[in-house]
Amino acid sequence: MIMKLLTEGKTKKVFSTSKDDEVLLFFKDDITAFDGVKHDVLKGKGFLNASISAALFQVLESNGFKTHFVDFIPPNIIIAKKLQMIPLEVVGRNIVAGSLTKRIPLEPGIKLNSPICEFFLKDDNLHDPLINDEHICNVLQIVNHEEIEYMRQTVKKICKILDKYFNDRKITLVDFKIEYGRLDDQIYVGDELNGDSMRLWDADGKILDKDRYRKDLGDVIEGYIEMYRRIIGEEGLDEIFG
Amino acid sequence: MIMKLLTEGKTKKVFSTSKDDEVLLFFKDDITAFDGVKHDVLKGKGFLNASISAALFQVLESNGFKTHFVDFIPPNIIIAKKLQMIPLEVVGRNIVAGSLTKRIPLEPGIKLNSPICEFFLKDDNLHDPLINDEHICNVLQIVNHEEIEYMRQTVKKICKILDKYFNDRKITLVDFKIEYGRLDDQIYVGDELNGDSMRLWDADGKILDKDRYRKDLGDVIEGYIEMYRRIIGEEGLDEIFG
Repeated sequence: MIMKLLTEGKTKKVFSTSKDDEVLLFFKDDITAFDGVKHDVLKGKGFLNASISAALFQVLESNGFKTHFVDFIPPNIIIAKKLQMIPLEVVGRNIVAGSLTKRIPLEPGIKLNSPICEFFLKDDNLHDPLINDEHICNVLQIVNHEEIEYMRQTVKKICKILDKYFNDRKITLVDFKIEYGRLDDQIYVGDELNGDSMRLWDADGKILDKDRYRKDLGDVIEGYIEMYRRIIGEEGLDEIFG
Repeated sequence: MIMKLLTEGKTKKVFSTSKDDEVLLFFKDDITAFDGVKHDVLKGKGFLNASISAALFQVLESNGFKTHFVDFIPPNIIIAKKLQMIPLEVVGRNIVAGSLTKRIPLEPGIKLNSPICEFFLKDDNLHDPLINDEHICNVLQIVNHEEIEYMRQTVKKICKILDKYFNDRKITLVDFKIEYGRLDDQIYVGDELNGDSMRLWDADGKILDKDRYRKDLGDVIEGYIEMYRRIIGEEGLDEIFG
């Protein structure tokens, strides 16, 4: 496979592959927060995040969602359809947490009546601000009204499906972020789904996700490993962490 | 008229009147910015703001909008229908300025293709954050989907009508904020419309509105007087400022 580095983000490298319509996502062991101001390397994180993302994208695929997922190459590579990425972070929320508490006078932990969706502009200079349909469709013309409605409805459906999926594993899905991309005039779920992009709480309220890192709670990789165990099991853990 | 102080805001006092379904709005000479951190008193501002608001609400009424305006009692009192206020600041924008530049990578002064609308939650503790339809209709349930759409479409229409109105007076309407309230299951435009709640630029780019105060540009009351002259004329100015 002839590979060329296409882009490198904070936690992933994207390479071309021998197929024009596919890319290779290499999950790094890096973890960052606060626009990259905080940065560390945690051995095995790339493996955990790639594995969890692969598992969850397969859940979405099996529920009929169009995603970029093609294949998982352990320990830390995902082969994906090459999408023209849409510069939005699309957030689904089941429970009040994170930036929502700065916007709505509700305490963290309150369950919402039904899932909600928020759009944030991917713009490092502006620190990924919340924007509304008018900004997206009329001012920036990133997507049209039909497309934004598709993304909003999809996120809410994913909220419900993953909520049930994690409930069955005794984990609470608080919120998550996904990104979308275009391919052949259709919109696909792209990017990743794992402890970097979701808030997951254990039955006893223990945080398993990147908030452990943001909030200096310690045992960051242990949270990700616990998440892996609930989703995938013991398979592969000894090889990486043993 | 038996009057009882109902509420006092930063720039207005609201009194009951002898009619149960009306209130008296007393426009103070106070001017404030940055959540009230900056505060001054400018002689005659109450007169200018009440007069301009009365004139603009009559423009809206004559264009068929339901507003709270009943009567103007010079120099600084407006009699208004008593509304159950909706805790949203609804912003209409023709041109990029103010907080929009922190949210969208566009320079101030750029004309938008068509007017846009934004909703901010009136909440001092949270500093009036931008919120979206989901926050408003689903989480906080402040208004329903039909009502939010009515407010959005009304603001955009007001944008166009006032844009033309000010163009005829050689002023550019950049943006404005209005508030709505309920009365008999209908939604009315309430609050005020003047230099405190609009951005207005003279033909040569001179700022006439509260940005003169926010940005320490000096000649604040002169900007408001110029605005008054273009909208109303010379009438009453000598009496207050002569």
